[in-house]
Amino acid sequence: MTRGRFIAFEGGEGMGKSTQARLLADWLQRDGVKVELTREPGGTPGAEAIRNLLLSPPGEGWTPEAEALLFAAARADHVARRIRPSLEAGSWVVCDRFIDSSRAYQAIAGGLGDNKVSQLHRIGSAGLLPDLTLLIDAPNDAVAARLAKRDGDTSDAIGGRAADYHAAVNAAFRDFAHAEPDRFAVIDGSGSIEEVHQQVVAAISQRFEVMA
Amino acid sequence: MTRGRFIAFEGGEGMGKSTQARLLADWLQRDGVKVELTREPGGTPGAEAIRNLLLSPPGEGWTPEAEALLFAAARADHVARRIRPSLEAGSWVVCDRFIDSSRAYQAIAGGLGDNKVSQLHRIGSAGLLPDLTLLIDAPNDAVAARLAKRDGDTSDAIGGRAADYHAAVNAAFRDFAHAEPDRFAVIDGSGSIEEVHQQVVAAISQRFEVMA
Repeated sequence: MTRGRFIAFEGGEGMGKSTQARLLADWLQRDGVKVELTREPGGTPGAEAIRNLLLSPPGEGWTPEAEALLFAAARADHVARRIRPSLEAGSWVVCDRFIDSSRAYQAIAGGLGDNKVSQLHRIGSAGLLPDLTLLIDAPNDAVAARLAKRDGDTSDAIGGRAADYHAAVNAAFRDFAHAEPDRFAVIDGSGSIEEVHQQVVAAISQRFEVMA
Repeated sequence: MTRGRFIAFEGGEGMGKSTQARLLADWLQRDGVKVELTREPGGTPGAEAIRNLLLSPPGEGWTPEAEALLFAAARADHVARRIRPSLEAGSWVVCDRFIDSSRAYQAIAGGLGDNKVSQLHRIGSAGLLPDLTLLIDAPNDAVAARLAKRDGDTSDAIGGRAADYHAAVNAAFRDFAHAEPDRFAVIDGSGSIEEVHQQVVAAISQRFEVMA
């Protein structure tokens, strides 16, 4: 049994990651590939319960430390209960956000530092990394226009943070992609859904032999 | 303003920690000391929500990694939102369980290793340690007899684990006390509630000047 491929979509708010993850999963399935489509935080009953605590904190809001620990706990459950078993059973896993979101949001924009977030990932999930991370990126003003059209979707405890927090997130993602060109493919997210999807398909086809 | 003292009660299931923590808090208050009586996991709205996830896991049960991360997240909230502010305001804090429970349960009995649990504590709570840790200990058969009288209290996801898990917890606590005699006082928990309380008072009086 060949291990499946692990593909993560990353990017700031309003980049269209969820849509593109679904389109990629559909495209792979049409090609005969077994695919698990999942998301973070969440993806398992335990991790979805933690997601609720993260997006609607019961107290005054989490400190950066507690927030990073909760994300790492949700990811540990998701990796142990779903991602690793799926990959080992030969499925591909397409995941909407993974460790680079924790690095961009909690480590860089939140100020906790990349070293601490990476340590948590080593302890929680043995440092598992995607085989390919598709960073969907767009100029800041294009994203602002798209976010303005969303209703309610960004009003959770994290999506609702200030514009400079989100600008730091986007800058951090660009830095990560620049530092690890083999693990990242940067996708221009400013076109239509279909145009972005075609870039995603091209990036996948270029790196992996998708078996029909 | 003098910083308050931070006192933790530790020990396995059925040692009478909660009762003794309450009795100590009452005794300190009668002596004119401002006291916060609290417990782990819990002590703040955020940490109590995490407690519910720990004791009643929504999925198939947490892996040791996820469990340790959730305890560290609850503790980070508790330390940042309640323990540190109380100590800085001059209150004593009396806490039913703290970091040594994570070391005994998740690190030793759960097999995660003390190094990982201590790293999580450094990242989450800057490694805060109690000024004094009161370990309530009793021979294993005395505890078994006491636990048999409890109804329902040990049926949660952690208290309900196998006897050898709990024996490993108790042995770990003894090792910790032996390794750090200045931070620990070992209290013989096999006597009556009042006898145990008198030992607690003696240990406190011997180490700290309790101001009337």
